[in-house]
Amino acid sequence: MKLGRLNHIGVATPSITDSIAHYRDTMGATHVHEPFDLPEQGVKVCFVDTPTDSGMNGTQIELIEPLGPDSAINNFLAKNPLGGQHHVCFEVPDIEEARAEFEDMGKRILGPTRIGAHGTPIFFLHPKDMQGMLTEIMETPKGAH
Amino acid sequence: MKLGRLNHIGVATPSITDSIAHYRDTMGATHVHEPFDLPEQGVKVCFVDTPTDSGMNGTQIELIEPLGPDSAINNFLAKNPLGGQHHVCFEVPDIEEARAEFEDMGKRILGPTRIGAHGTPIFFLHPKDMQGMLTEIMETPKGAH
Repeated sequence: MKLGRLNHIGVATPSITDSIAHYRDTMGATHVHEPFDLPEQGVKVCFVDTPTDSGMNGTQIELIEPLGPDSAINNFLAKNPLGGQHHVCFEVPDIEEARAEFEDMGKRILGPTRIGAHGTPIFFLHPKDMQGMLTEIMETPKGAH
Repeated sequence: MKLGRLNHIGVATPSITDSIAHYRDTMGATHVHEPFDLPEQGVKVCFVDTPTDSGMNGTQIELIEPLGPDSAINNFLAKNPLGGQHHVCFEVPDIEEARAEFEDMGKRILGPTRIGAHGTPIFFLHPKDMQGMLTEIMETPKGAH
């Protein structure tokens, strides 16, 4: 495979409301999307855009807040009460092809391919096989870029 | 201030050599820079480029390996032996202006402004004031972008 766009970095937070205030007021973010629930993943999500040389199409910050007591993010926040860097997400043109390639390389894939926060198929790779980083692979949205 | 480019994500690793192999062979990185020592920061550094819609000018992955036994990265690796996400770095047009703004907001700045891995002035902000994330602020290289 070929390294794709770093679509987003996933940042866990105990409060998306507080994090939006941080990115707007402290960091000066100008493009903050509407938060929404992603019940299948047990998270509330909010994307913050960052610029590149050519527009606001940079790597996004994906704020993720636990949705309910069973959310996997609760464990992360128990260890990191202020929140912090949770995962990275790279784009691929074809999710099934990428999944097969990672499987062939013996990388552990966490669960089935499913629909992610951008509405395209995603899967997660085990951090122990990925240099200590929980790594999401997502199919590039059609028509994007 | 206005949110600038997410210049890079800093990724600690026990071995830049192994990490380069990972990004090249597993992830398919095509643009891996030459590693170099940054003795003032106690690290060896290697940048991996990622694409945007308009070229290879995306957020970089900055691989950081401890340089010597006193490196601050050793503590991180003691807790995360495989390595992992260490910091994020946003660009600003003027480092002194940014430093004054963060100081006015009461954010703790870690040490003096100094020259970073891209040869421009940088400083770090305390993770406890930055939503749990060690945050580097760097002045955009002149002539870049």
